[in-house]
Amino acid sequence: MKKIVQCVPNFSEGIKKDIIEKIVEPLKNRSGFKLISYESDEDYNRTVVTLIGDPNDMIKPLIEFFEQALIHIDMNHQKGEHPRMGAVDVVPFIPIENITLDECVEVAKSLSQHISDKFGIPIFLYAKAATQENRISLPTIRKGEFEGMKEKLKDEEWKPDFGKPDVHKTFGVTAIGVRTPLIAYNIDLDTDDMEIAKKLARTIRQSSGGFQYVQAGPAFLKDRGHVQVTMNILDFKKNPIYRIYEMIQMEALRYKVKISSSEIIGLCPYNAIFSSLKYYLSLNSLNIPKKLSFDDIIIDAKKYLKLRDFDKNKIIEYHIEGIL
Amino acid sequence: MKKIVQCVPNFSEGIKKDIIEKIVEPLKNRSGFKLISYESDEDYNRTVVTLIGDPNDMIKPLIEFFEQALIHIDMNHQKGEHPRMGAVDVVPFIPIENITLDECVEVAKSLSQHISDKFGIPIFLYAKAATQENRISLPTIRKGEFEGMKEKLKDEEWKPDFGKPDVHKTFGVTAIGVRTPLIAYNIDLDTDDMEIAKKLARTIRQSSGGFQYVQAGPAFLKDRGHVQVTMNILDFKKNPIYRIYEMIQMEALRYKVKISSSEIIGLCPYNAIFSSLKYYLSLNSLNIPKKLSFDDIIIDAKKYLKLRDFDKNKIIEYHIEGIL
Repeated sequence: MKKIVQCVPNFSEGIKKDIIEKIVEPLKNRSGFKLISYESDEDYNRTVVTLIGDPNDMIKPLIEFFEQALIHIDMNHQKGEHPRMGAVDVVPFIPIENITLDECVEVAKSLSQHISDKFGIPIFLYAKAATQENRISLPTIRKGEFEGMKEKLKDEEWKPDFGKPDVHKTFGVTAIGVRTPLIAYNIDLDTDDMEIAKKLARTIRQSSGGFQYVQAGPAFLKDRGHVQVTMNILDFKKNPIYRIYEMIQMEALRYKVKISSSEIIGLCPYNAIFSSLKYYLSLNSLNIPKKLSFDDIIIDAKKYLKLRDFDKNKIIEYHIEGIL
Repeated sequence: MKKIVQCVPNFSEGIKKDIIEKIVEPLKNRSGFKLISYESDEDYNRTVVTLIGDPNDMIKPLIEFFEQALIHIDMNHQKGEHPRMGAVDVVPFIPIENITLDECVEVAKSLSQHISDKFGIPIFLYAKAATQENRISLPTIRKGEFEGMKEKLKDEEWKPDFGKPDVHKTFGVTAIGVRTPLIAYNIDLDTDDMEIAKKLARTIRQSSGGFQYVQAGPAFLKDRGHVQVTMNILDFKKNPIYRIYEMIQMEALRYKVKISSSEIIGLCPYNAIFSSLKYYLSLNSLNIPKKLSFDDIIIDAKKYLKLRDFDKNKIIEYHIEGIL
């Protein structure tokens, strides 16, 4: 049985097409895994890459990918809406099939060792790979961002897991880790008022008393001209998408604001969408089938969750079928 | 500015009316605070007293109250459904106005010192007044109950905060502490299906991934013939009533169930209701006043939150006005 992980490197360039292509190039057409997508966001100035396949086959190409990022990105001149601390900002491995969390941690450590040895980039192991309580949360590690890392790394508490406690002058710092599947989900609002997005984010996120498995914040999408509540759902079984969607809708009403659309960044498990659609099918007294086809999932997700830019390539299971 | 706390002593007699009166007597018509209510439960064999006012003015009367409980209750012959370890079982102080948690802890310690010195009753400080991690939770302290305390107190871990590690032979042991205001709130559903109440409770409570400051479970109300989601809201600023109400309503829809009414048990702060009503006033594009009169609060709470058995005596501030 082939080991399958999802690996989602994020790098800090989302504008310059030629550079994005150069950085992603080493991940194209390799054996053992597929480059599913790379999505750039100009406002965030960030690109999210998605790989699916055998993690051991990913290591060599990922080293080449780091090298390209090192060559082409200088964090001293990088600006964007998304918090970041490195040219490659974070590399999470997510177990999908026939692989345990612990095996993924071994892969994360192996990649970290190579990157640190070869390029002198300091690395934090995070989430399920964390070696200390305060390194479980990526936002906690990233606090201070690139600009603050020089000071932060001097603190014994923030000594990197790999490499010396010196920020790489142009690259910064990277976090490599292992996590359970999370959903990067954003809800678009028909307003440009950041205060409203902030207030709504606070109602749903764990850190402000909201849902236990939701991290959320406000964002302004310049090219689209509206704000959104941007979030990570760390456990979609306990905090399903529909519940968050409905709650944002309910809270937004007091500001006379409506949800205009929503989006999933990267991939998500089939069940994350299907289980949420069941809520709306019940509401409409519709028959709930045992399974929906990928095509039907897409149709209903657009209808009930106003998902934009959504197609079956975003569903993890759609790709696994091709690999297995 | 006068310091105001709510103080809710519980004592272990809920049946014999004459004894209950004797024990409560020292708390009546004193200056600086008001005896709001004392409610006895025969099955529990327990009475819950509510005082509101200046905590420093409560100390002398509370000592006299302890003395009456000591004279009239012998724990060796006390039986009831509610777990208990002392004739006066627990005395929580809850900051309401112009007083910090720390100041309340000082009051709790001062009362403890008097009770221990005068009557030789061992005392545990609990909740926000706890001196050890394992004394934060009252049920943990009380485990073993009156009958088990003799052995428990011999354990170094359970050495009382005040007094010798010897249970008072007839009185037992008391916990005195400080906690933040909590709201006991229940949402009635137009169904008798406990499974639905269970599922709804899980969507909102912290322990199942829901709101951070909500503890919730299902309950069946035999005499009313329907179920309810019964809850404690530990922080109504972070988890406001209207949000919980709306979420239960949204979730219940998938089961074709509606909220029939809701209720607050005991007292609640003015702002817990007022801040939630603001949501509905905004929704209806109504003017949001700086303050609503107690009468208007009652009318709107019935209208928007379907609060039953609710009147201004349930609002803490209504009692404070008389004191200030």
